[in-house]
Amino acid sequence: MTKSLVSTFLPCVDWLKTYNTRTLSDDLLAAVIVTIMLVPQSLAYALLAGVPAEVGLYASILPLVLYTVFGSSRTLAVGPVAVASLMTASSIGALGLQTQAEYLQAAMILALLSGLFLLVLGILRFGFLANFLSHPVVSGFITASGIIIALSQVRHILGIQADGDSLPHLLTSLAANMGSINGPTLWVGLFALCFLFASRLWLKTLLLKFGITEFVASLITKAAPVIAVLITIFWATLAELGEQGVALVGEIPAGLPVFAFPGFDLFLFRELLIPAILISVIGYVESVSVGKTLAAKRRQKINQNQELIGLGTANIASAFSGGFPVTGGFSRSVVNFDAGAQTPAAGFFTAIGIAIATMTLTEYLALLPKATLAATIIVAVLGLVDFSILKKTWNYSKNDFIGVAATLVMTLLAGVEIGVSVGVAASLILHLYKSSRPHIAEVGEIKGTKHFRNIKRHKVETSPDVVSLRVDESLYFANASYLEDEIFRILGERKQIRHIILMCTAVNEIDISALEVLESVNEILRQEGIGFHLSEVKGPVMDCLENTHFLANLNGQVFLSQYQAVHSLQMEDTLLSL
Amino acid sequence: MTKSLVSTFLPCVDWLKTYNTRTLSDDLLAAVIVTIMLVPQSLAYALLAGVPAEVGLYASILPLVLYTVFGSSRTLAVGPVAVASLMTASSIGALGLQTQAEYLQAAMILALLSGLFLLVLGILRFGFLANFLSHPVVSGFITASGIIIALSQVRHILGIQADGDSLPHLLTSLAANMGSINGPTLWVGLFALCFLFASRLWLKTLLLKFGITEFVASLITKAAPVIAVLITIFWATLAELGEQGVALVGEIPAGLPVFAFPGFDLFLFRELLIPAILISVIGYVESVSVGKTLAAKRRQKINQNQELIGLGTANIASAFSGGFPVTGGFSRSVVNFDAGAQTPAAGFFTAIGIAIATMTLTEYLALLPKATLAATIIVAVLGLVDFSILKKTWNYSKNDFIGVAATLVMTLLAGVEIGVSVGVAASLILHLYKSSRPHIAEVGEIKGTKHFRNIKRHKVETSPDVVSLRVDESLYFANASYLEDEIFRILGERKQIRHIILMCTAVNEIDISALEVLESVNEILRQEGIGFHLSEVKGPVMDCLENTHFLANLNGQVFLSQYQAVHSLQMEDTLLSL
Repeated sequence: MTKSLVSTFLPCVDWLKTYNTRTLSDDLLAAVIVTIMLVPQSLAYALLAGVPAEVGLYASILPLVLYTVFGSSRTLAVGPVAVASLMTASSIGALGLQTQAEYLQAAMILALLSGLFLLVLGILRFGFLANFLSHPVVSGFITASGIIIALSQVRHILGIQADGDSLPHLLTSLAANMGSINGPTLWVGLFALCFLFASRLWLKTLLLKFGITEFVASLITKAAPVIAVLITIFWATLAELGEQGVALVGEIPAGLPVFAFPGFDLFLFRELLIPAILISVIGYVESVSVGKTLAAKRRQKINQNQELIGLGTANIASAFSGGFPVTGGFSRSVVNFDAGAQTPAAGFFTAIGIAIATMTLTEYLALLPKATLAATIIVAVLGLVDFSILKKTWNYSKNDFIGVAATLVMTLLAGVEIGVSVGVAASLILHLYKSSRPHIAEVGEIKGTKHFRNIKRHKVETSPDVVSLRVDESLYFANASYLEDEIFRILGERKQIRHIILMCTAVNEIDISALEVLESVNEILRQEGIGFHLSEVKGPVMDCLENTHFLANLNGQVFLSQYQAVHSLQMEDTLLSL
Repeated sequence: MTKSLVSTFLPCVDWLKTYNTRTLSDDLLAAVIVTIMLVPQSLAYALLAGVPAEVGLYASILPLVLYTVFGSSRTLAVGPVAVASLMTASSIGALGLQTQAEYLQAAMILALLSGLFLLVLGILRFGFLANFLSHPVVSGFITASGIIIALSQVRHILGIQADGDSLPHLLTSLAANMGSINGPTLWVGLFALCFLFASRLWLKTLLLKFGITEFVASLITKAAPVIAVLITIFWATLAELGEQGVALVGEIPAGLPVFAFPGFDLFLFRELLIPAILISVIGYVESVSVGKTLAAKRRQKINQNQELIGLGTANIASAFSGGFPVTGGFSRSVVNFDAGAQTPAAGFFTAIGIAIATMTLTEYLALLPKATLAATIIVAVLGLVDFSILKKTWNYSKNDFIGVAATLVMTLLAGVEIGVSVGVAASLILHLYKSSRPHIAEVGEIKGTKHFRNIKRHKVETSPDVVSLRVDESLYFANASYLEDEIFRILGERKQIRHIILMCTAVNEIDISALEVLESVNEILRQEGIGFHLSEVKGPVMDCLENTHFLANLNGQVFLSQYQAVHSLQMEDTLLSL
């Protein structure tokens, strides 16, 4: 018992037991590759989040160690990611803070609140809540965020000032500042963009032609951003781009982050609570979907509640080491997986790699043009943009289409927080609306099969005085009166009805509001001399009904099967008419 | 077409066609009785809402005329009611307005916004929205409101100052002012309370003993508040109670209300929008449930959307004639019905009655002690308080119990607006939570019946290599991954499984999120060499699936019935093993 509890809350205990030199070397190799990829990514996402470059590096050290200890995915690579960074910038930007120090404090508080929220959800086993973010909402949100993120980086390519966290703001801001484009910045930016796009499209094929193995070719392609970084640092140094108005990353303090307490500021805590919850939930959903996909490939499992704890502690660690919100990244985790990472120890070694980079490389990174980082971000996020979901949902179900479209449009027009909130609300309301007007089919027997189907879709036998209705939904407060109206509508149309059978195959719950409606329907039918019967009532529903007077007062019977119901009622009527 | 459109939007056209002297005399009698009852009620609810007495009378004239024209219930009696008046006082009180004129303007704006909201909902045919207020929420809310209303009137009985719109506030405020009880007020209040309670308990039996007919005895009992009003006016005049510190209704301007425009005040419009929506929705639900109950007794129907239009126009009329929010009242409508009202014309005649009272009786009503009105309210609302719903839901379903308890407790502790919001949110969340963890039963055939039921509840036949799962819920974003986990859990436990059949009797929808999960399950099962089949898929679900590649890629078949599925798969396996 104690042992299983330990391995539930500390998944590392499990994999440490079987750790050996073979897994160690696999993890080390993966860590080296992920470190090389993560250095420019950390700097880029810090730029996107609006914090100094070193904050991106800090967020890639301690959080990874905590996730190694508490996370349940074997190969998820944690750190700063695009969408969470955009949301960080957008939510702190809305506060209108004056100084860099305040902005940094807000970023740490955002990480702290996100971490605490995730941790509490995990301890309360509330992982299921993430299921309420539907696939259409997530798809629409990611596509719209990708567009906003790419557009928000255009200013760094052009070397102009511009801001905004929605499409209209960004476009007007960019248009207004078009006059002050910086030539050298534009050249660096366009070079980096072209280089990265070209690498993505052709580098791998080219390398394969040169006889390089698939594995190495794929890794070199993934390392293209590092090559772009090296080339543009070299360019900036030789051409003294800094003197020509090209924005460089600038001085980065060398050395590891020191323990930092975010400080208690009631205003910031209150204002950042909702953004923190949204960042956590979005980050968690992104993370879990990557983790699940990768785990399934190796027949492993991830534990949703443990993931909450892993990501929660990682964010708290980020807050206390001067970082900002982190989560599991998609491309990074795939690289980690492909590079052969076997256990979360790869994340720990990556943290060591980033720590070494932070201590040794900052002098060179200071000379990196911001345009290069912007190009890295643009190329990465445009891979997230995918409009095919619109077509797919349009063909499949209009409700799902509305979910995608509402999230996409609202995110673009009103920003990430409103976009995702509207999306979730729209999904839930559409689902509830649909269940409040359930499909009610009149059914009859398909001759000789004892099987009852919709009279409108199948050739079936019915009897004029027995009506069988199948309600295709649980009966609950939102749809109970709809059923009542439907029964009385049918009664009004056909005067010869002597029995109504409610076929309950699809009724998974009858709540007390619906029970009251059924009681009143039963009472009215009794007065009219019409029998009211139930068939195929499920066990859990029957258990509930047996606690009430409903069955005792029922002006009819409860039948195990629809077939029994129809045939005993017809038999009874025949006997009575003799 | 035009004709049916007219009678849809103007239900009065229908009943006016058959109007005759017989219905006229029935309606006139009912109108006289309702008028006598409504005069003290209008004054009392004006007191509760915090507006001058005449506003209560104004709200009982023009709104009734509009409801006569647009309402769809034959016997609903519209006017000021207890809960809406409490909500009016609570929402305007929260604004901290300084003058009586501002308070009155706010009351008119509240009526205007409520009216517009209801009217728009009605025109958009959104009557179904009211179904989302579940029976537990409404019961809990009405009981808690009754307690708060009764307690809010205690100050008038004691002749002290006190305020608050929640239990803690009211109790502390009453306790703090206990020192300044006014003796004569207390006597009048206690007399009115005892008189009204005694009438309610014994007056009818007493009158019956004196040989008075049931009908007349019942009407006299209902008129008890009028008798209390007459007695205390007489008492106040003789004993000059006004000089002894007893609060009287005071001067009421004689004459009909004049057309008044609420005036456009952006602050008030914005602050009162949410309260107006809540008052409308609660008032509408109260009204429709009374209307439905009474209509069912005479085999009539009410039209939910038309009710929205009727109540909407009534509230707009209230706003423009110096009134405050109105709706259909429970006790008043029952009296109207029992007194024999046949058509909404009874409401029109009641409006004339109130208009006459407003022109002639105000001089006498000015001498009425407020304590009498407070006693009327207390006795009326205590009839609404009913805790039995707690016991009933506790026995029936814990989810429903939580709905009642949350609404009840939050309304008492935090006031009406928060109470009802929490209640609605709790009902929806519980419903969604339940549907996110659906009941999944493994089923087998009840021998010789072609009928498949839960293996845990029935004696059934199963085969070790075919597993049939019945999911008792539609598959949608919130529960799709739960099903996936369950399938893999069963696969992990039983290695000999060769086919999985998903019995879809209770699956009323498969949304795109669930479809993606089914596609991934299908893919994994294909790799494992396990067949994945569906049975008893409903027509609307099949229509959706046929638009996708899912059926083409399915590693198995779709069977019309579960029986066919099991037997063809067993047959195939037998043939294969030969």
